Amino acid sequence: MTKNRIEGFSDAVFAIVITLLIIEVKVPEVDKNQLNNALLELTPKMIAYVLSFVVIGLYWIIHHTMLQFIEKVNRNMLLLNLLILLVVVFIPFPTALLGSYPLERTPVVLYGVTLFTANMLSLFFWIYITSRKEFVKEYLSKKYSRLVVVTHLIAMFLYLVAIAISNVDVLFSYVIYITVPLFFILANPIINKVVSKY
Amino acid sequence: MTKNRIEGFSDAVFAIVITLLIIEVKVPEVDKNQLNNALLELTPKMIAYVLSFVVIGLYWIIHHTMLQFIEKVNRNMLLLNLLILLVVVFIPFPTALLGSYPLERTPVVLYGVTLFTANMLSLFFWIYITSRKEFVKEYLSKKYSRLVVVTHLIAMFLYLVAIAISNVDVLFSYVIYITVPLFFILANPIINKVVSKY
Amino acid sequence: MTKNRIEGFSDAVFAIVITLLIIEVKVPEVDKNQLNNALLELTPKMIAYVLSFVVIGLYWIIHHTMLQFIEKVNRNMLLLNLLILLVVVFIPFPTALLGSYPLERTPVVLYGVTLFTANMLSLFFWIYITSRKEFVKEYLSKKYSRLVVVTHLIAMFLYLVAIAISNVDVLFSYVIYITVPLFFILANPIINKVVSKY
Amino acid sequence: MTKNRIEGFSDAVFAIVITLLIIEVKVPEVDKNQLNNALLELTPKMIAYVLSFVVIGLYWIIHHTMLQFIEKVNRNMLLLNLLILLVVVFIPFPTALLGSYPLERTPVVLYGVTLFTANMLSLFFWIYITSRKEFVKEYLSKKYSRLVVVTHLIAMFLYLVAIAISNVDVLFSYVIYITVPLFFILANPIINKVVSKY
Repeated sequence: MTKNRIEGFSDAVFAIVITLLIIEVKVPEVDKNQLNNALLELTPKMIAYVLSFVVIGLYWIIHHTMLQFIEKVNRNMLLLNLLILLVVVFIPFPTALLGSYPLERTPVVLYGVTLFTANMLSLFFWIYITSRKEFVKEYLSKKYSRLVVVTHLIAMFLYLVAIAISNVDVLFSYVIYITVPLFFILANPIINKVVSKY
Repeated sequence: MTKNRIEGFSDAVFAIVITLLIIEVKVPEVDKNQLNNALLELTPKMIAYVLSFVVIGLYWIIHHTMLQFIEKVNRNMLLLNLLILLVVVFIPFPTALLGSYPLERTPVVLYGVTLFTANMLSLFFWIYITSRKEFVKEYLSKKYSRLVVVTHLIAMFLYLVAIAISNVDVLFSYVIYITVPLFFILANPIINKVVSKY
Repeated sequence: MTKNRIEGFSDAVFAIVITLLIIEVKVPEVDKNQLNNALLELTPKMIAYVLSFVVIGLYWIIHHTMLQFIEKVNRNMLLLNLLILLVVVFIPFPTALLGSYPLERTPVVLYGVTLFTANMLSLFFWIYITSRKEFVKEYLSKKYSRLVVVTHLIAMFLYLVAIAISNVDVLFSYVIYITVPLFFILANPIINKVVSKY
Repeated sequence: MTKNRIEGFSDAVFAIVITLLIIEVKVPEVDKNQLNNALLELTPKMIAYVLSFVVIGLYWIIHHTMLQFIEKVNRNMLLLNLLILLVVVFIPFPTALLGSYPLERTPVVLYGVTLFTANMLSLFFWIYITSRKEFVKEYLSKKYSRLVVVTHLIAMFLYLVAIAISNVDVLFSYVIYITVPLFFILANPIINKVVSKY
């Protein structure tokens, strides 16, 4: 099996999920002179939109990079990939929940659980691929493969901390939710160097 | 005609349908201290979301696998494919209905009829292709071709049973709706072996 | 310029439009024992959904077939193609209007005007391409090219009749709206033969 | 890295955004004899739909043309591209706002700010690519590269004027919002000539 269609299908799913996020931000229906206030009240939804957009965007980059190293695809990979997409497609729901109830614990926990699960399944996918030599391109080094595993484990650990810490104050959880993708973006030039070798 | 665009178009439709499912699960608008209860009440919708996601995901894999064996495409295939997509695109409606009225008979029957029809059209598509030698890749064996027909017929039969049995208790129908994709997933390693020969 | 991306972009737009149609068919929120009646009342929306699905599906096949004969793409074609998509993307609106007010004249007229415009722009696109030899594949015969023009003109004429006749009875218009795609589907084996030569 | 997937992903996002615009134009739920009036009241939403469709369509053409000159892709480009898409995906919100409150200053300003930002990020993307010789195809001339920069700067300047002038009368802003894409479309034959050399 070729990997073209798994790429095309996944790309389309990521693209739709990332675009659906903004649908949840509804135009307020108020009197003209209350419009500015009504727009200001959308701030939590806007923040949730940007946060989830960046998170899903990064997942797409990770997915993109993983598939680069794949030589061919089997049916188990299609199923595992579907499982990842099941969680990615779910992200707009906790995002909208976070935008509507930004200071409640349940949405903050649900958001963390969702991102933790997405990371965990992505890690499973990577381990499944890399443990089968015939599916991986020859030039994939063990060093890079381990870097992917470690990065996933760190993100998963941080999301667990964010879930636990929400018990104290949800704002701490937000700090973690914002830090994880930010760290990934700031570390990008370094990862870029490692990946660009391929 | 090449098959690139029928693949691209179908992939996009499957991707959008699978993503639209979650749109039906609306964020509850309740008082803060009723949020957890309101979220628990979403359980049937969540189950319906996961069930239909898995079903559509499997349809995509089946569609993906079928097109692998196609050499070229004609206009009749495009029309037949459109007919399949017409039913696939419809799935979010009975899914949402099931989520809203999980214990009523009509939604359970409509869900079964929709999946039965999708399977039937998919079978027609397969028979149309495989009965025209010039459209099929040479390496397709009769054995595999018959396996596809039999799998479709079993699924169709089970959906008919699910529809009939809803008269007794809709929960029996749910057992079947969950078993069919589950069976397909558990049998995956076996099918994987057969397909991986190609 | 290559034509890959104009195909990919158009395919995605067609796929999304065709999938969005079902979003307009909302799950009724009624008492359990009124569910069956409420579902029956959705009949006009269901018919509108199926009709527009078939129409857009056929537009996709036409678009698909046209681009097959294109050798390369220039910026004017991209703009013309955007104009076609502008109208195609609009189709869900008159479709939903038709589903909500099936017996009123305005929705019936708007539906006809939209399909007429889509056909007209599609014809412009075809004339623009075929009048520039360097953009067309050599094997395109004049006979086939003229067949495309005539088919478009007939459809446009019929839509004009449907618009005019809505003044007498909208049901006449529906007969035409259903006949046009049906004719196209029934004539498919014949067109298939002509096209399959390429 | 190849540029196939960045193209596929971006195409899908553009396609979905452009299609979602029409979702904001809801079918009115009124009495039959008030339907025509209710439809007339949708005029601002229709204008906003067409305007944003054209703007996003042109962004897609610009994006399409830029990527044509790219030889390969690195992770920084993926991130920059995501940032552009973040703003593009946001466009339906200010569009819907404009359609609901066409004569208020805030929506008019927000629309201008969004388009200004989209242009600015697109310019950053272009400068980032063209300043790295290894990523650009050899045949890209300095003259054409500068043309892209100048066009972007002019559009950005005009959007700033539109934002400032909204203080006097929002209608002036609309004139600019309509003129910018119109100018681009009318200048198309000239740009077409320059680009067609490649």
